[in-house]
Amino acid sequence: MGFNEGLLVATRARQSLLCVGLDSDLERLPPHLLREFGERAVLEFNRWIIEATKDLVCAYKLNLAFYEQLGPTGLGMLEETLASIPEGVLKIADAKRGDISSTAKAYAKAIFDYYGFDAATVNPYLGLEALEPFLSYSDRGAFVLCRTSNPGAREFQDLECDGRPLYLWVAEAVARASERFGNLGLVVGATWPEELRRVRELVGDGLPILIPGVGAQAGDLERAVRYGTNSRGELAIINVSRAVIFASAREDFAQAARAAAQRLRDEIERSRPRRS
Amino acid sequence: MGFNEGLLVATRARQSLLCVGLDSDLERLPPHLLREFGERAVLEFNRWIIEATKDLVCAYKLNLAFYEQLGPTGLGMLEETLASIPEGVLKIADAKRGDISSTAKAYAKAIFDYYGFDAATVNPYLGLEALEPFLSYSDRGAFVLCRTSNPGAREFQDLECDGRPLYLWVAEAVARASERFGNLGLVVGATWPEELRRVRELVGDGLPILIPGVGAQAGDLERAVRYGTNSRGELAIINVSRAVIFASAREDFAQAARAAAQRLRDEIERSRPRRS
Repeated sequence: MGFNEGLLVATRARQSLLCVGLDSDLERLPPHLLREFGERAVLEFNRWIIEATKDLVCAYKLNLAFYEQLGPTGLGMLEETLASIPEGVLKIADAKRGDISSTAKAYAKAIFDYYGFDAATVNPYLGLEALEPFLSYSDRGAFVLCRTSNPGAREFQDLECDGRPLYLWVAEAVARASERFGNLGLVVGATWPEELRRVRELVGDGLPILIPGVGAQAGDLERAVRYGTNSRGELAIINVSRAVIFASAREDFAQAARAAAQRLRDEIERSRPRRS
Repeated sequence: MGFNEGLLVATRARQSLLCVGLDSDLERLPPHLLREFGERAVLEFNRWIIEATKDLVCAYKLNLAFYEQLGPTGLGMLEETLASIPEGVLKIADAKRGDISSTAKAYAKAIFDYYGFDAATVNPYLGLEALEPFLSYSDRGAFVLCRTSNPGAREFQDLECDGRPLYLWVAEAVARASERFGNLGLVVGATWPEELRRVRELVGDGLPILIPGVGAQAGDLERAVRYGTNSRGELAIINVSRAVIFASAREDFAQAARAAAQRLRDEIERSRPRRS
């Protein structure tokens, strides 16, 4: 089963398009956990969050930076975190990798073989040729950055190239390549609803779109769901990180995360176009 | 001292623009080392290569992928490798990172604070705003991908945007930003000498250019040096990886690496325009 098909199965079975981002920055963890566990608080925190939210999500997204900044110990905690994510919930490496030939192959090995992630985010600047090591894992997904959620995304992504902005060139190239590879998707920030709408229109129904930027970054959830899903209300993954995992910094942080996730999941379900 | 000034000092003191890439892919290491040390052969290999070449180079460049593919153990070996690089030789993280806000900050912390690298390669797709966490370390360098060495680089980097290709937009934005930040540079592959010449012309004398692609990728060394250095024959770093470190896969691998590095360093020196 190709990744995109697997994603459909997962989101249908779990009736959720919500992905929780485990951006568990040591500096922002609940103080009582830090006092008790020191650096290991990252792992403790993740286990509590996963336990509290695992029935509400289709995926967890882990931003590798927050683990890398703690050196090998951090990567060890990444490994242990992944082990506590239940079967059937997808594990997405938000790695934004982009490199060439044997190096790209080594990144794909790290993410898919060593850590066992189901999908990774990748950067298109080096051309799709450079992403082939990722695409050759047909049961794993590769989400290509298209329109990122940050304010500075405009600088290059909006440059008009032969009559259309760069991000649409990327979207089109990915849509074309996905005729050969059944595991390609795109990343478009919820902070750019108009651009999200244009991307979905351009790529049609077949590609999944990973949509960060809801919550702390103030992207519009309802439009993210409406514009990001395909005509059957599927193949979008709505990621929320800080607004869920840091909903409270007190002892009730896990319950608060669950309540936030529940609210978001329900709101997403209400906004989804009905399958036709 | 800003990074770019430090780079000038380093290359003058060591009379070398050569950077050796420690792309120490486990699969390609000398078989006798693998037999003796298993996975730890990566560290052994690096120590031998560094010992054999350290007086010939201005920098070592480490492609993080080759360490990440071995999990936390690999990152431990990365740490130990860095510890064996002598004072005065720069340590470049070829990480090609690009992410936003707190995530970009965490990547910069990983590379500069945790591992203590002197410079990193970064990806421009998210806009220069996203790179600011890297730029805020004024004594560390940030080399922005401009024209990468791979065949597929053309796909997006050559798109004509308002009359000039994307990679020149990146070069110009970086040149402009370097009026505020004294630690910005560019990456341009030696496999594209014409593009390298255009980039150096556009950015003038102040920016360093990191130039991979010589050796296994068959970039032209003489033109890389002539087009890549500034008018004083400085501020270029010529990286060679496989053609040095894998010059031999037998017991003489370290001597063979030294011989290759020596040849390259001398050829670079012959090709450098004289300082005026």
